[in-house]
Amino acid sequence: MNPIETTINTPMPEAETAVRDALAGQGFGILTEIDVAATLKAKIGVDRPALKILGACNPTFAHQALSIDPSASLLIPCNVVLEPAPGGGTHISIVDPRQLMSGENLTELAEDAANRLTAALESLDR
Amino acid sequence: MNPIETTINTPMPEAETAVRDALAGQGFGILTEIDVAATLKAKIGVDRPALKILGACNPTFAHQALSIDPSASLLIPCNVVLEPAPGGGTHISIVDPRQLMSGENLTELAEDAANRLTAALESLDR
Repeated sequence: MNPIETTINTPMPEAETAVRDALAGQGFGILTEIDVAATLKAKIGVDRPALKILGACNPTFAHQALSIDPSASLLIPCNVVLEPAPGGGTHISIVDPRQLMSGENLTELAEDAANRLTAALESLDR
Repeated sequence: MNPIETTINTPMPEAETAVRDALAGQGFGILTEIDVAATLKAKIGVDRPALKILGACNPTFAHQALSIDPSASLLIPCNVVLEPAPGGGTHISIVDPRQLMSGENLTELAEDAANRLTAALESLDR
């Protein structure tokens, strides 16, 4: 699976704020948040690098997708993954809705959502 | 996409409790929760039937999947969708990890996770 992705020269906490703002600018709110590193540490005592998963959702798109195909509920929200980049800064990767929502009736909607998610990442300061 | 699914003869609130317990019995915790109907009502004023999405995660599986393929973060957690069944009761559908985690190295893990999710649904009182 090839995500929509970028790397920015900003530490994770500031990157998260910037990503949330950029997504909001494209109509995507964050509905869920998982601190994977903290969760795995708490549940099974594993130490691993920082990893955060935000669940992004554009309510208009979600409503349209569910109206066209109720099984779209299996694929909402859209994962936005933040992790430290190997060379410093933060790597951000977003599930590409075009790869998940493959039904013919959802093609146009998935394309539109992907364009907005791409625009959000492109709007970030490098 | 064909989910792992079932219908039980229980209203949604009680069904949610039963599903959470059944998933816990298979090592899956619920990390996220989206009341889709309430969210769409609040954000864009749309009225729609009840729809809830729980994000289930088995920390051991998640850790193994991330170790094998870091891009598994794009697909965590596993959506568990609850909605009223047309004939009464509650319909429950779960993303089948075998369909999302298609990388060769993840096949065995996805199979194991799918078996546990199936067992969780089969353990529910009809």
